[in-house]
Amino acid sequence: MITYDISKRGKRSKYEYLYRCIREDIRMGTLPGGYRLPSKRVLAEHLRVSVSTVEHAYDLLVSEGYMQARPGSGFFVCTNRDQGVLERSAETAADREPEHTLDINANRCSLKLFPVDIWVRIMRRTLSERNPVLFEAVPFNGLLVLREAIAGYLYESKGMRVSPDCIVVGAGTEYLYGRLLRLFGSRAMLAIGEICPKKLVRASQNYGAQWDYIPMDEEGFQIDYLEGSPASVVHVSPANQFPIGTVMSQQRRDELLGWAHAKPRRFIIEDDYDSELRYAERALPPLFTQDDSACVIYMNTFSKTLVPSLRISYMVLPEALMDLYREQVGFYSCSVSSFEQCALAEFIAGGYLERHINRLRRYHGHQRDVMLAALEASPLMEIGSIDSVDVGTHLLLRVSTTLSDREIGEAAAKRGMRLDTLADYSVRHTVETAHYVVVNFASVEEEQIPTVVDLLVDIFSDDIRRQRKKRL
Amino acid sequence: MITYDISKRGKRSKYEYLYRCIREDIRMGTLPGGYRLPSKRVLAEHLRVSVSTVEHAYDLLVSEGYMQARPGSGFFVCTNRDQGVLERSAETAADREPEHTLDINANRCSLKLFPVDIWVRIMRRTLSERNPVLFEAVPFNGLLVLREAIAGYLYESKGMRVSPDCIVVGAGTEYLYGRLLRLFGSRAMLAIGEICPKKLVRASQNYGAQWDYIPMDEEGFQIDYLEGSPASVVHVSPANQFPIGTVMSQQRRDELLGWAHAKPRRFIIEDDYDSELRYAERALPPLFTQDDSACVIYMNTFSKTLVPSLRISYMVLPEALMDLYREQVGFYSCSVSSFEQCALAEFIAGGYLERHINRLRRYHGHQRDVMLAALEASPLMEIGSIDSVDVGTHLLLRVSTTLSDREIGEAAAKRGMRLDTLADYSVRHTVETAHYVVVNFASVEEEQIPTVVDLLVDIFSDDIRRQRKKRL
Repeated sequence: MITYDISKRGKRSKYEYLYRCIREDIRMGTLPGGYRLPSKRVLAEHLRVSVSTVEHAYDLLVSEGYMQARPGSGFFVCTNRDQGVLERSAETAADREPEHTLDINANRCSLKLFPVDIWVRIMRRTLSERNPVLFEAVPFNGLLVLREAIAGYLYESKGMRVSPDCIVVGAGTEYLYGRLLRLFGSRAMLAIGEICPKKLVRASQNYGAQWDYIPMDEEGFQIDYLEGSPASVVHVSPANQFPIGTVMSQQRRDELLGWAHAKPRRFIIEDDYDSELRYAERALPPLFTQDDSACVIYMNTFSKTLVPSLRISYMVLPEALMDLYREQVGFYSCSVSSFEQCALAEFIAGGYLERHINRLRRYHGHQRDVMLAALEASPLMEIGSIDSVDVGTHLLLRVSTTLSDREIGEAAAKRGMRLDTLADYSVRHTVETAHYVVVNFASVEEEQIPTVVDLLVDIFSDDIRRQRKKRL
Repeated sequence: MITYDISKRGKRSKYEYLYRCIREDIRMGTLPGGYRLPSKRVLAEHLRVSVSTVEHAYDLLVSEGYMQARPGSGFFVCTNRDQGVLERSAETAADREPEHTLDINANRCSLKLFPVDIWVRIMRRTLSERNPVLFEAVPFNGLLVLREAIAGYLYESKGMRVSPDCIVVGAGTEYLYGRLLRLFGSRAMLAIGEICPKKLVRASQNYGAQWDYIPMDEEGFQIDYLEGSPASVVHVSPANQFPIGTVMSQQRRDELLGWAHAKPRRFIIEDDYDSELRYAERALPPLFTQDDSACVIYMNTFSKTLVPSLRISYMVLPEALMDLYREQVGFYSCSVSSFEQCALAEFIAGGYLERHINRLRRYHGHQRDVMLAALEASPLMEIGSIDSVDVGTHLLLRVSTTLSDREIGEAAAKRGMRLDTLADYSVRHTVETAHYVVVNFASVEEEQIPTVVDLLVDIFSDDIRRQRKKRL
């Protein structure tokens, strides 16, 4: 029978350790497709753990597509083909399902506003003049011209005073996160909101990071929970907690900074993603500018504000942390093409970025208005309401439905539309997050909006019918 | 006194564990600059380890610049400033010492041959026509058009039959290495030649990889040593073991493949870096094409063959490993700009890459001839000889000198020249590797070559004088 030494689990919980052992054996083919696993009770006795430990591990493996429960006959390792099917329906869906005609999930943005002519002109000048910067070795944290341009932009648009020496440019936020995590050591624990970009959590778990999840209310993070957490690093987006759009109140910001200052080696990662696309009143200044003890790390990306095709993100580190970064991971080469770094530097310095962001904001603001109006005029309002998210490129549609979140996604897919619900971003499935549909207005054309709303109405038609009957 | 629980070292050796603990405390400031460490004997007694364990750990910390031995008074933690100085003279030298007028270290390449006009034309067309590919989500392993172009190129130039589905495109070899290491698990051990790209080893150690070092002779890796190693993954460059240029013999290749086939889950990473720049007879086909059991992973980069400003590398995985890759790390976004992926795809498919490589080869071949002739006509031949490396962009100058490798580097720096010796690439410092100077001919202009040779003569003038006296 399969045997694992549970005492070797280290700090992991028993079920998680068991789950990992079995998963590893399935991945490596030690447990082949079709293999029948021992019953929960038998394995529990064999390993001297509780039945619920085994149950929890099996549940995870089934939900992730490694195992299959065949009622009446037990648990079996999925064959590669089964796994493939499950894979396809899970995280790689975006890569493999080009057949979706509509994709309103929350992470895409239109290329069509990108000022191609300006970009090509800048690129041509950079290359034709063989800008001397291109001949230099690229520093690990990016070309100085680009870091200077970013520092200037941060000062003008957000009032941040930043030395170009403390900026690190990298190929995407995930990449920078990977580097950053090295500094906190493998034992460090990070905290993030319960509703969060799960992909970021997964990506950094792959680097060995451990996460704790903090409940949120309408003012943002509940700091008293944070006080009780073993975490020493916190990931927040005070301007716009993705994807629910919560703006952190000034009081919470003060509390959060107080938490960070209370003990040495506590840090706050301020992810300012999407903050440029704000439709309501002016945002509070970044937490970074409110911090006088050098414990805030500021992160942002050009993938959202410029064009997703460019993989350029950046972070600003407090000076002491920058020294550590240079020492520990400064030997890694910069991961961004210096052609594009040069071009982007000129794009920013020439004021084109600011103009482009204004244009994006107007465009998305209009799309948002049209989407809002279409939703509000639809029968969806009989079973739901709209949570206004004042930042970014999506709205939240709250619906009262008998469908599960999973069924909502499947019903959408059947109609050729890719759709996320808030459950896709939540680590704990509570009633609260149960039936929020993420309605992205950035990746559909204006003329497609009525179609999107019609499809949504169709998905929830049973609920609407039921609601109407009830009223009669 | 500093106290660490040596029993918590896991699989590490005692000295390595102790070294890591102290290093961590120095990095985090727990042991501040100037702090005086206990004597070796006292600490050994305190921790109940042997004096040589402490000695080994202290030696490493001193050699890495974390500690300083002050004769007669003991060991001290370096202040940040001391550390900074050491850092500067070590790996970040390239970033921080732009004052060098000549830089003949082994890892740069000229931008001036890059066909700017063609690149800009392709870029303009890609962007202006708003190539539909740019609107699609980029698959984790890169745009299909680029992977198809790479597959075509590999077939025509190296006879490799490769499915575009098994290619992964990423922002540099280090980046791809980081992803790849996830697949082998944190317990996996890798083997590499004793003389190797140390930066790669350091980068992957940061991901938790453990390395074993295999002695090499003129046929390449000594496979019998590999048989005795616990490693299950081997990094080799059969066409050109960087930086010594050894070409692996067919017999060794067969033995290496035999080693890989002998047990399941053994893999060979074939790093084909620089193989396009070959000046002697035709190379053997890549190991990848000689493998019929899907255990070779092929890696290469465009940074050397195209232009270093572009951060685009790729690898080809065996199908089964590709499935695992997709599943385990396929959720990471592709790290390369899709503008540049599109442009590169057209650059390759249009035959421009091949033409550019031919041009590079002619240019570097000429530089190499000029450098060789200048060295051979110089007094350096009285104390040394040239090891002809038939691949890449450097030669090896073997010198008989009283200077240590470190002194050679310092003497060069004093004369405004950055210079590597083979010791910079060797993990074990033996007599064998002691006095080889790496003479790069790619990052100097032809007219600078006499200056480089004059400076080398100047550095070794004492040795030359001594040798002449001896002869008289």
